[in-house]
Amino acid sequence: MSLYHPRREDLEIGTVLQALSDPHRLRAVRRLADADEPCACGSFEIDVAKSTLTHHFRVLREAGVIRQELVGTSKLNSLRREDLDGRFPGLLDAVLAASGTPAVSA
Amino acid sequence: MSLYHPRREDLEIGTVLQALSDPHRLRAVRRLADADEPCACGSFEIDVAKSTLTHHFRVLREAGVIRQELVGTSKLNSLRREDLDGRFPGLLDAVLAASGTPAVSA
Repeated sequence: MSLYHPRREDLEIGTVLQALSDPHRLRAVRRLADADEPCACGSFEIDVAKSTLTHHFRVLREAGVIRQELVGTSKLNSLRREDLDGRFPGLLDAVLAASGTPAVSA
Repeated sequence: MSLYHPRREDLEIGTVLQALSDPHRLRAVRRLADADEPCACGSFEIDVAKSTLTHHFRVLREAGVIRQELVGTSKLNSLRREDLDGRFPGLLDAVLAASGTPAVSA
């Protein structure tokens, strides 16, 4: 079984922004941005049902934000930083910086 | 009648990304970014029903991306660039630059 990943040149800004607009997905992306190596889905401390988390990772993968690799029965996730930076310079850094800036009223 | 606008400090990255993720809204934002002065809704060459366009502008306003000012029977739209740049440095420029980079397959 192989997982679909869009090619770098096919990444679309609207789809990427949509993928990043969900707070749980953004939290997962922040976690991956801080990680030194690919992370198993189960290692994310995100308080949603497992099926919901699976959905979020699929949205991120299909948008081209992350890469998912099947290793045994696990999926290992990593951020497609080079592809994102190459295609949309500055976007990921701006989003990661912004996501550390909660609204005052939040 | 006054229109709701969130305060700068209440802008949320998820809501802003969601607002920018729609291609019609992104096109309107690009147009406003290029404009020297506020633009009437009717002046946007975006091929959707008027009610849909009104909806898109409301989403942008409520997310804090644009300001809408009632002048007579028109709404004049302008980009909240200073608020966006102040709250999420680099984000708007990255999105505007990215939105000029269509996918190869598009």
